[in-house]
Amino acid sequence: MASAEFWYEFASTYSYPAALRIGPLAEERGVTVAWRPFLLGPIFAAQGWRDSPFNIYPAKGRYMWRDLERICGAMGVPLKRPEPFPQPSLLAARVALALEGDERAEFSRQVFAAEFGRGSPIADRAMIAALLAKCGADPVATLERAESDANKALLKTETSRAAEAGVVGAPCLVTEDGEVFWGNDRLEQGLDWAAGRRRERPSAIAPLSR
Amino acid sequence: MASAEFWYEFASTYSYPAALRIGPLAEERGVTVAWRPFLLGPIFAAQGWRDSPFNIYPAKGRYMWRDLERICGAMGVPLKRPEPFPQPSLLAARVALALEGDERAEFSRQVFAAEFGRGSPIADRAMIAALLAKCGADPVATLERAESDANKALLKTETSRAAEAGVVGAPCLVTEDGEVFWGNDRLEQGLDWAAGRRRERPSAIAPLSR
Repeated sequence: MASAEFWYEFASTYSYPAALRIGPLAEERGVTVAWRPFLLGPIFAAQGWRDSPFNIYPAKGRYMWRDLERICGAMGVPLKRPEPFPQPSLLAARVALALEGDERAEFSRQVFAAEFGRGSPIADRAMIAALLAKCGADPVATLERAESDANKALLKTETSRAAEAGVVGAPCLVTEDGEVFWGNDRLEQGLDWAAGRRRERPSAIAPLSR
Repeated sequence: MASAEFWYEFASTYSYPAALRIGPLAEERGVTVAWRPFLLGPIFAAQGWRDSPFNIYPAKGRYMWRDLERICGAMGVPLKRPEPFPQPSLLAARVALALEGDERAEFSRQVFAAEFGRGSPIADRAMIAALLAKCGADPVATLERAESDANKALLKTETSRAAEAGVVGAPCLVTEDGEVFWGNDRLEQGLDWAAGRRRERPSAIAPLSR
């Protein structure tokens, strides 16, 4: 069965609609998705950024929030900006990594819905515990696994793997043949690629005189 | 009739597929497009950039070229990287601005096809003259108009207008009600918006447990 890796970061705005959309889109195409949380911080730091580029470049930040508002509006899902932005995402990423399969996907969607749908702080342990309970996971045992040295080290390794795979932002889809598709707006294209459907001429082009 | 402004920059890679695609996409939706060439340089300079962000951030540059290769492949149009990149685009922008209506659109598509389809240098006056002749425009008279003080000043004004309209990169579509849609990948969405068709729930989302 075709598969693809879905690399996402809990502080990333465009990872929110992507996390809600990817399940049905992948299922339609018969693609199995591996949910891979990672940290953008080290990847941004390698580019000389110590904050979200949407904060460093305010014009892009204004554009992004409006763009996201339109995307969420069209999807029929709420959008509420969390304060501060970006949210510290380390705890959520560790917890997601300590879960597996559907539980990881469901917890991740719940974190995004809390953070960007309701504007809730995701660095809060009580909030994370409540979201774990919602998914049917044991909050205490999961938090303990999440904060083990082994799991902390694994998140670092995963983040290095993301950079090596060519992940330059979040979300990214990485296919089995190593293609990277960056952005919520590339989900369909990336999943089509993963499924072996590479669309030809998706839209007409204007003829050029010779 | 619904209308939208198409802001583009001749040095911008994603403006190439957008320039080839926008005509048929706008026609399908009954939207009239005003082609508005501008210069990204001043807008990037305001963000502290003195070069293309795809050169400043090599990982993003590598991603962009592969992404563009896939986009052009799916469209069935050639892609050849011009050297140097980015190309100096001042002359082409002045010439495009000195033309009107369909002639401006056709000349612009020809410039993009030469630059990114064949990898040709677009700062070359003889090349620009040849492209003008291809479009049925008078090369000598057009170049003279393009390099008049009035036209040079107009390009500066247009670039300021782009920044004021919220254009943060190229290409951008700006609708009559002031919405900005940035990127080749937002053309359909922006033209739908311009035509008054704001899609509801473009794709299914995963249900969240409560």
